[in-house]
Amino acid sequence: MNYTIVRPDQGLAPALQHRIDTKTKPVGALGQLEGLARRIGLIQQTLEPELRKPHILVFAGDHGAARAGVSAYPQDVTWQMVENFLAGGAAINVFARQMGMALSVVDAGVAHDFGPRGGLIHAKVEAGTANYIEEPAMSSAACRAAMAHGRELALGLASTGCNVLGFGEMGIGNTASASLLTHCLTHAELDDVIGRGGGLDDAGLERKRALLAKAVARGGRTVDPLEALTQYGGFEIAMMAGAMLGAAEARMLILVDGFIVTSALLVAHGLVPAVTDYCVFTHCSQEPGHQVQMAHLGGQALLDMGLRLGEGTGAALAYPLIQAAVNFLNQMASFESAGVSDKDPAPVSA
Amino acid sequence: MNYTIVRPDQGLAPALQHRIDTKTKPVGALGQLEGLARRIGLIQQTLEPELRKPHILVFAGDHGAARAGVSAYPQDVTWQMVENFLAGGAAINVFARQMGMALSVVDAGVAHDFGPRGGLIHAKVEAGTANYIEEPAMSSAACRAAMAHGRELALGLASTGCNVLGFGEMGIGNTASASLLTHCLTHAELDDVIGRGGGLDDAGLERKRALLAKAVARGGRTVDPLEALTQYGGFEIAMMAGAMLGAAEARMLILVDGFIVTSALLVAHGLVPAVTDYCVFTHCSQEPGHQVQMAHLGGQALLDMGLRLGEGTGAALAYPLIQAAVNFLNQMASFESAGVSDKDPAPVSA
Repeated sequence: MNYTIVRPDQGLAPALQHRIDTKTKPVGALGQLEGLARRIGLIQQTLEPELRKPHILVFAGDHGAARAGVSAYPQDVTWQMVENFLAGGAAINVFARQMGMALSVVDAGVAHDFGPRGGLIHAKVEAGTANYIEEPAMSSAACRAAMAHGRELALGLASTGCNVLGFGEMGIGNTASASLLTHCLTHAELDDVIGRGGGLDDAGLERKRALLAKAVARGGRTVDPLEALTQYGGFEIAMMAGAMLGAAEARMLILVDGFIVTSALLVAHGLVPAVTDYCVFTHCSQEPGHQVQMAHLGGQALLDMGLRLGEGTGAALAYPLIQAAVNFLNQMASFESAGVSDKDPAPVSA
Repeated sequence: MNYTIVRPDQGLAPALQHRIDTKTKPVGALGQLEGLARRIGLIQQTLEPELRKPHILVFAGDHGAARAGVSAYPQDVTWQMVENFLAGGAAINVFARQMGMALSVVDAGVAHDFGPRGGLIHAKVEAGTANYIEEPAMSSAACRAAMAHGRELALGLASTGCNVLGFGEMGIGNTASASLLTHCLTHAELDDVIGRGGGLDDAGLERKRALLAKAVARGGRTVDPLEALTQYGGFEIAMMAGAMLGAAEARMLILVDGFIVTSALLVAHGLVPAVTDYCVFTHCSQEPGHQVQMAHLGGQALLDMGLRLGEGTGAALAYPLIQAAVNFLNQMASFESAGVSDKDPAPVSA
């Protein structure tokens, strides 16, 4: 697959910066919102950016390794949580509703037959991955299919006028998969990027560490993003990576959630580095590997509230801040228009 | 003035915690939002809290010391920014609109005659404070009047059904006043709590340091909150302190903005420590003294985005997170209601 991702032209940067700096506030006083406003202006190539039809896609998939004990939860929780999403009762439903974001749930590879269901996007590649402790998680063909489907989903939403795509996921065992991908695609030691996931106790964490060390002993520490994905990935992660690349092709703003979503971005970035030009890191997860990922990708998170839920909840919670960046750029008065005196270069000394 | 502030009864805490812990998410996975949900439930003494008629009050006042050169901006910017607030063009207007919060501007002591103006609450005590480098900023009587007016404003809003009060301020020179109050009411050295305010350069910062050292040499480092307020305060700060105490009397949720608002809270807390039980620290300002204040008061901020604008902008930007805390508590399904399996205490080992 060839992804045509264009880096945003920087020509508008000085005009955007001027627009930001002449608003009625001290230069820089809105902190991270100012850089965000500038970036969104550059992504959309306009001094008056607009956020249209914001949409969160929650990708669900099962992991063969979950049955080996890498998670605190039984694998059935994946499909049960998909049902919870469809019924509107999960955290991401609550937050997406509050923030006025559309929400769709994608079955990328859940080990469960949902039957025909309204509200569920059927994109199942296989009914869960193989157990990467014993064999590669997926075939190259399945990986390609997952990524292609993700790309089509993003392009499809773009064609309806959506220009903000939030990413979320659900998959029991997927922090383990994300740890393996992060170990392969950054310089981090494996143990430094393994966390408690949904809430492992000390013994569970030790078990997870041992299992993942076994997986790497079998599959190796490849630095090739597609090879890492087929060895250790999940279908939800592969589909997210494809959807991110599609979103960047369509010049959409990409809202990156936590540790698992960022592992998909590591893959996407490994294939096309320019994808991160379209990304906002919405929050810093409590999973220890997330900071490693963001440092590798050169990103800074908007929120740092100890979240570790996934589902795209960080992306939804941060969305009002992204709206605020666009709103101050478009709606605030300038010193001139408001008749406010700008900073006095030489105040009278006492 | 006697303030009747009741500490929230903790009897509901176990039931609130149970409600939070049985939601369809790993225990603790919503990070700071979980503690916030619990606190709001305790403040409102209910398992189903509600945020009603959220309102931001922006208190404006002038500082005699501003003319001595403690700020990068000329004093006229205070009234010009009040005009900007009334015209809807300032950052706080944009953010309050976005978040669905009402906004009122209070003339607590601006050195300007606005005449009769719709939308402006006329509560001017005096036309700016005296220059604390030479004499106390205000008389005890003026200080009491400002605080009493603030209390009445808060109680008045409570009587209309508002139960969330956000605090903001505008006053050229008021970071200097906040630094002096923080030096008096915490254990911090003066130099450690002096920052660049609206954007002083190195020379300006040195001048500010020298001027504030002169002020303390004259007025002393009192630990008495009312004495500190009369010596170094502003009318907007005094009125905020009174309004916070009134809001806590009325069991309202208090949204604390940045460095200057928190200096008012230091005064309020010095008078009635229980006031902080009703407070949410919405963000961590770039002013170096703000962290000192929050450490003294035992608070943890929701946002840390490099903001240093004031006006209540941090309170408005964080408001969706506070709504999210209440919404997840009220709207999320429980494991039982959603038919989702809870954490498996003994996963099968590989």
